[in-house]
Amino acid sequence: MTEPFKIAIAGLGTVGQGVVDIIQSNAALIKARTGRDIQIVAVSSANKNKARSVDVSVYEWVDSAADLAGRKDIDCVVELIGGEHGVAHDLVAHALESGQHVVTANKAMIARHGLKLAQKAEYKNVALKYEAAVAGGIPAIKTIKQGLAANNIKAVSGILNGTCNFILSEMGLSGRAFDDVLVEAQAKGYAEADPSFDIDGIDTGHKLCILSALAFGIKPDLDNVLEHTSGIREISSLDLKIADELGYKIKLLGSAHVDEQGHVAQSVEPCFVKKSAPLASVDSSFNAVFFDADFAGQVVNIGRGAGAGPTASAVVADIMDIVCGDIGTVFSVSASQLKDARYMDSSRDEAKYYIHLSVEDRPGVMANISSALSAEGLSIDELIQRHYHVDGPVSVVITTHKTTRYALTSVLNKLQALDCIAEIVSVYRIFNI
Amino acid sequence: MTEPFKIAIAGLGTVGQGVVDIIQSNAALIKARTGRDIQIVAVSSANKNKARSVDVSVYEWVDSAADLAGRKDIDCVVELIGGEHGVAHDLVAHALESGQHVVTANKAMIARHGLKLAQKAEYKNVALKYEAAVAGGIPAIKTIKQGLAANNIKAVSGILNGTCNFILSEMGLSGRAFDDVLVEAQAKGYAEADPSFDIDGIDTGHKLCILSALAFGIKPDLDNVLEHTSGIREISSLDLKIADELGYKIKLLGSAHVDEQGHVAQSVEPCFVKKSAPLASVDSSFNAVFFDADFAGQVVNIGRGAGAGPTASAVVADIMDIVCGDIGTVFSVSASQLKDARYMDSSRDEAKYYIHLSVEDRPGVMANISSALSAEGLSIDELIQRHYHVDGPVSVVITTHKTTRYALTSVLNKLQALDCIAEIVSVYRIFNI
Repeated sequence: MTEPFKIAIAGLGTVGQGVVDIIQSNAALIKARTGRDIQIVAVSSANKNKARSVDVSVYEWVDSAADLAGRKDIDCVVELIGGEHGVAHDLVAHALESGQHVVTANKAMIARHGLKLAQKAEYKNVALKYEAAVAGGIPAIKTIKQGLAANNIKAVSGILNGTCNFILSEMGLSGRAFDDVLVEAQAKGYAEADPSFDIDGIDTGHKLCILSALAFGIKPDLDNVLEHTSGIREISSLDLKIADELGYKIKLLGSAHVDEQGHVAQSVEPCFVKKSAPLASVDSSFNAVFFDADFAGQVVNIGRGAGAGPTASAVVADIMDIVCGDIGTVFSVSASQLKDARYMDSSRDEAKYYIHLSVEDRPGVMANISSALSAEGLSIDELIQRHYHVDGPVSVVITTHKTTRYALTSVLNKLQALDCIAEIVSVYRIFNI
Repeated sequence: MTEPFKIAIAGLGTVGQGVVDIIQSNAALIKARTGRDIQIVAVSSANKNKARSVDVSVYEWVDSAADLAGRKDIDCVVELIGGEHGVAHDLVAHALESGQHVVTANKAMIARHGLKLAQKAEYKNVALKYEAAVAGGIPAIKTIKQGLAANNIKAVSGILNGTCNFILSEMGLSGRAFDDVLVEAQAKGYAEADPSFDIDGIDTGHKLCILSALAFGIKPDLDNVLEHTSGIREISSLDLKIADELGYKIKLLGSAHVDEQGHVAQSVEPCFVKKSAPLASVDSSFNAVFFDADFAGQVVNIGRGAGAGPTASAVVADIMDIVCGDIGTVFSVSASQLKDARYMDSSRDEAKYYIHLSVEDRPGVMANISSALSAEGLSIDELIQRHYHVDGPVSVVITTHKTTRYALTSVLNKLQALDCIAEIVSVYRIFNI
C-alpha cells in the first residue's frame, strides 16, 4: 500500500478552510486521480478557537506555523497565511531549505521573493507551486507552464482583481459613482476597509509580475510593475457611460508584452475593452487571463478569481501535481535561467487611446483640437462632441488609431495649452484585440 | 549530458508540418523548459515529394508509418495521420505495445478506441496523450486533468468545431443563408468538399465524447453521443435574426452534464447562447470550452480550435510533458477505474427552450398557444408575435423557463395538432449560464 502524502496547512482563513473542505469532500476522487491519499497531518492558525466552516479538531494543532518547517512527517507545507515578509516567508524559506515541498497562494511573497525561493526549492529538488496566487480558480500558471509550454508568449494580460472588476461592473450597470459603489462593495465584503491595495492596482501588479516572469522567462521585478501601475479611483460614471456608447467597457488590466528584440513592457491601468472581445464579458468577481502565443495564437481563460472554492481548488491541484511526481521548475525555466528583464522605452510603446476633453462651447474649438492632433501625426478613429449634462461643459471624446506614448504625451501637452480646453478629463488606453 | 528525447512523426499534413516547425523554431525554449532536446529521428507520410512548408529532408524518411512502431531508437511516436481505424490505429496500438510513448491529435481514434489504447499504455507504463484532439490550441484536456484535478466536474460544454462556428458567425453577421455561406467556407478552405462530418456535428461529437470521459471518469461512449447529435444544416437566417433581436447568438454546442445521482447526459446541438455570456463572444474559427466544477466554479477557455500552429502547439506541449516525466493516466483516472456511464432519462433533462412557430393570422391564435403551454405547466419567459416577411406567415416566438424535455415534447405535440399553427419552424435549447 502506498503511504499517504502528508501535508500541513498554515493559515485557516477562507482559503485554508476551503483546502480542508476539498481534501475532506473529494478524498476518493483525489485518490483515484493520483493513486495516493492526501493526509492533513497538522494545521496552524492565529486563533485556535475561532468558529470555522470545517472540522479541524481531528488534526494536530500547531500554535506556531514556523514549527511546521523541517518536520520529517510533513511532505508538503501549504502556506496560506499571506503577506510579503514575516511569518509566511520565513516558514516557506525554512520548509524549502529542509527539503519540504511548498504550495502557497501568496502572490505578494512570490512577486517579491520568488527568485530566491525558487533557488532554494531547486537546490533541494523540491516543488514550490503557487497556482492559487494568480486568478484563483483559473489555471493561468499551468496554462503557461504546460498548455502553452512550446510557445514564445508575446503578451499576457488579465482582469486579475475581483474587487475592481465588481466595482467597475456595478458602476457600468447602475451609473453610480465610484465612492458610492465602493461603500457597497465594502458592505458586501468584496472590498477591504482599507481598499487601496486592490483599487490602486497593487494586487493586480503582484499577479502581473508573476505572469510576466513565467511568460517571458524573466526575473520577477515588482518594482518595475508598480512604477507603471494606476488604479480605478479616478474613473467617472460619465467615462463609463461614454465607453458604453462607443461599444466598450472599462476594465482594470494588468498587461505585459515583449517586442521582437525581447524588450518587455508591463503596466496596470484601466483600459477600454471592446464589448465584442471575450474580456468584456468578464464581469463582477470573475477574472480572466489573455495570452498571445507565437504558435497557439490567442488564448483566454475565464473563471472565478477569488473565494474559498476556486482558490482552494488551485491549491489542491498543485498538491496533486506534486503527489504525481511533478516537481518541475518554479517558474517556466529554472531559476538560474531567468533573465534580467530589458525594458521597452515606454515612450515608444504603441496603443490606441481614448481621450476625453472638457471644452468651451465656441466656434473654432474642433479645428484647434484637430490641428493639435494632426501636428503629432495622431490619427482619429472616432470623434464625438456632446453636452452630456445640461448646462455642463461640452465634452469632446476622441478615440485614436495606434500611436506611441511619446506622440500621445506631446498631443496632450498641446491640448493642455489651448485656451478653448477647460480640462483633459481622462485618457485611457484601448486594449487592442 | 542528457540524451535527446527521440520522436518520430507519422503524418506530415498541416499539423505534422506545424510540429516540425515548432520543434525547429523553438528548440532553445523547449530545451530551457524541459532540460532536454527533442530530436526528430524519422518522419513518414503518404507522399515523400510533396512541397512542404518545412524542411524534412534532414530526417530519416520512412515509407510505411507502421515501421516506426517498436523501433528502440524512437522514444515517442507522434501520430498525425488521422482516421478512426486503419494505419493510424494500428501504428498507435503497436507503438504502445512495444513500450513507446504516443502523442496524437486523432479524436476519432481516441473517442472510438480510447479505452483499449489506454489499457495498453498503462500496462506498459507509457504515455498516450491527445491534447490536440480537442479544441486545438486550448489546453482543455490539461484543464481537466491538472487545473481542475481536485474537482468533481458537473458539466462540460464547448464550441468545438471551427467550420460550424465560422458558418454560424458569417450567417449571423451577413444575414446570408446556410447553403450560401457553406459554399464560401468551402472556397476558403474552412469546410471540406464533403462537409457532413463537421456540419452534422460528428466531429463535435468525437470531441465531446473525449471531454465527457475525462470530466466524469466514464468510458468513452461515442455511440451514445452520436445518438444525441444534430448539426447546423437546418438553421435559418431568420432564426439567427430573431436570436439576435432577443439577445442571443446560435452556437453548435457539445454539452455533457451529470446529475446528483451520477447520471450523465450528452448532446450535440445548436443552442441559443446569451450575448453577454463568454461563449457568445467566441466567433469564427475560435473554439471555447466551458466547465462547471464543484469547487472552482465556472471556467471558460477560449482559443484557436484548429490550424497548424495551435494544434501543433498542443502536440508539442504533450511531448514536453512526457520529456518532463509526466506519464500519468490516459484519462483523468486509470483505465481500470473508468466506469460505464449511467445515462439520464433524457425526457427528464431540464432546459430552457426557444420555440418558433408559423401561425395563421387570425383571432384566438395566441389564446390557443398559451393554453397548450400552460396545460403542460410550461411557463413563458418571452413571447413575440411578428410579421418577419411582408406577405409571409406570422411568426410566434416563445422562450420558455426551465422545463423537462418530456413537457416540451408534449407541448410540441399539442401545438402540432392545432389548426391555427401552420408549422413548428424550429426548436432550440437555450444554453443556461
